[in-house]
Amino acid sequence: MPCDGLIELRDAMRRFAAEREWERFHTPKNLAMALSGEAGELIEHFQWLTPEESSNLRAPVREEVALEMADVLLYLVRLADVLEIDLAEAARRKIAINAQRYPVERARGRSDKYDRL
Amino acid sequence: MPCDGLIELRDAMRRFAAEREWERFHTPKNLAMALSGEAGELIEHFQWLTPEESSNLRAPVREEVALEMADVLLYLVRLADVLEIDLAEAARRKIAINAQRYPVERARGRSDKYDRL
Amino acid sequence: MPCDGLIELRDAMRRFAAEREWERFHTPKNLAMALSGEAGELIEHFQWLTPEESSNLRAPVREEVALEMADVLLYLVRLADVLEIDLAEAARRKIAINAQRYPVERARGRSDKYDRL
Amino acid sequence: MPCDGLIELRDAMRRFAAEREWERFHTPKNLAMALSGEAGELIEHFQWLTPEESSNLRAPVREEVALEMADVLLYLVRLADVLEIDLAEAARRKIAINAQRYPVERARGRSDKYDRL
Repeated sequence: MPCDGLIELRDAMRRFAAEREWERFHTPKNLAMALSGEAGELIEHFQWLTPEESSNLRAPVREEVALEMADVLLYLVRLADVLEIDLAEAARRKIAINAQRYPVERARGRSDKYDRL
Repeated sequence: MPCDGLIELRDAMRRFAAEREWERFHTPKNLAMALSGEAGELIEHFQWLTPEESSNLRAPVREEVALEMADVLLYLVRLADVLEIDLAEAARRKIAINAQRYPVERARGRSDKYDRL
Repeated sequence: MPCDGLIELRDAMRRFAAEREWERFHTPKNLAMALSGEAGELIEHFQWLTPEESSNLRAPVREEVALEMADVLLYLVRLADVLEIDLAEAARRKIAINAQRYPVERARGRSDKYDRL
Repeated sequence: MPCDGLIELRDAMRRFAAEREWERFHTPKNLAMALSGEAGELIEHFQWLTPEESSNLRAPVREEVALEMADVLLYLVRLADVLEIDLAEAARRKIAINAQRYPVERARGRSDKYDRL
């Protein structure tokens, strides 16, 4: 069962690229770079904050962060589309893999070797 | 209207973190770093490929790419959850902003100043 | 006056690539991606650490971090070489720009708007 | 034997941070994030370019790229300083490791499994 919200975004991005004739720029290689660039912009909002400050963003920062996160999601959805990957299915599968990799009883409260999602 | 698929993933991640008592590691700062790290792993799959090769991934590479993309999505969803950001809403809003920033008639086929999603 | 150490690394990388006939893979685009991927690997070592823990790495982690940093430097040096950019000169110039952008008396102890290097 | 140029930059950055009382922001965790953010800014200059275009940057883009690369180098040098890592030594060591990992006769012209620097 696909994710309706992700499909809605996929279709919106597909239309957006088609209207602007941007499909030729949207190779998987380029989209992966664009996603990585947006992840870099996202991280810049947090780099000098203490962990506590990062949990209590001022409203305008939080809004900028939300839009950077949107950028990451949009490129991710677009990359999945051009690669014909079912993103929601992959995510569910990855959660199952992680559940096996980090059994509750061994991973509890530990951030050393059990911390990799 | 929220995205059902994203909400399903949000809840799965929330449960996953709670069961392992990982909430204290999941500060926004740390999650933004983890997302960025996964974006780095994603990009490594594409770095030596030609644009054409990136559009024709061999099956095992495509599968690895799908799981890296899942990692990015899962951290993105988790970060949105701890920041109480509605990711699907932010994405729809960002598409509207982009539509204004890159009017079809001016952006068509150009990758110079109209290329930033 | 060029930086001797950086030039030594540049020459070593140039030779390394030539011997393996890797020059055609070393486009600026690809090298920027590779650098970004290594930055992602670097950040993964720090993502779950508290700021204090990050200042007191265990010896094996510190060694891994050193080698990830080496990877970033090597790709940076190689990218500068193929772009014919004098990295040390650019760095000195950037420090001068930053000194103007963040005057001591206004930037002191602040991480808000004066924090961007 | 240390790299004079890198040491000059290290000392300049150390002074820069001290004058502004920024040392407390310069934890390894934060500096790794800042480096990653700059790597993201660097990659954004290349994301829509063809490989050929990336080798023939227009002068103003090339200048921006040089300054982004300077940012990466400065954070890298600063991170090495606070971690007390000899960056030039680590880079030379990494080249030696890579030379063993990618023997000339097997790695020649291949970008598949021998492509990881």
